[in-house]
Amino acid sequence: MADITSVAKAFVEFYYQTFDSGRQQLAPLYRNDSMLTFEGQQFAGSANITEKLVSLPFQKVSHRISTTDAQPANPGNGAILVTVTGQLLFDEEQNPQFFTQTFTLIPENNSYWVYNDVFRLVFA
Amino acid sequence: MADITSVAKAFVEFYYQTFDSGRQQLAPLYRNDSMLTFEGQQFAGSANITEKLVSLPFQKVSHRISTTDAQPANPGNGAILVTVTGQLLFDEEQNPQFFTQTFTLIPENNSYWVYNDVFRLVFA
Repeated sequence: MADITSVAKAFVEFYYQTFDSGRQQLAPLYRNDSMLTFEGQQFAGSANITEKLVSLPFQKVSHRISTTDAQPANPGNGAILVTVTGQLLFDEEQNPQFFTQTFTLIPENNSYWVYNDVFRLVFA
Repeated sequence: MADITSVAKAFVEFYYQTFDSGRQQLAPLYRNDSMLTFEGQQFAGSANITEKLVSLPFQKVSHRISTTDAQPANPGNGAILVTVTGQLLFDEEQNPQFFTQTFTLIPENNSYWVYNDVFRLVFA
């Protein structure tokens, strides 16, 4: 699974760098069929998902990735299940919050788009 | 998505009750195509997965579920992506550990089996 692990790590690095530097630029990663469940709230389609991400109530955010795991997603059409754990720092906060995020990536034209996206803070 | 949320919650309740009361009984939930990534270690097939779960170095374990999220898994063949966050208590430990687990469930004969399974402790 070396190859999908490399894809997953490259995606995760790109995703959070983009999120932290200007999250409206995540829009092209989502399609009309994309789904986001953010802290239990459900959003569908690139426009709604991007609107939610942009409207999150902080100015500065920094993601630190702790772990990235990848598996082939059912049914082996090249889709990849990616799970992430890490830490978040908001604005001027000193104490990180822990989060977990799960993606399913669908291959298209030598790239990938996000079909499933599930985000949760983990309260420690 | 009310229906898949109900399926996900019922599965999660059954899975962790079974895990905590006798985890060798989880074997029927896995098939030859199943995958487990446990703290970064990869296992394939019901026998290998069950052997790993049974060999985990604790006698008593108790899972407390904090959140369960569900989305239709690509490509809409009835498969369900389920993500869980929660706490674990091992043996006589007083301090819970936080974990996250992601499953893809495949429908078969009015039941579901586990295709993807990714488990991570979240260190706070």
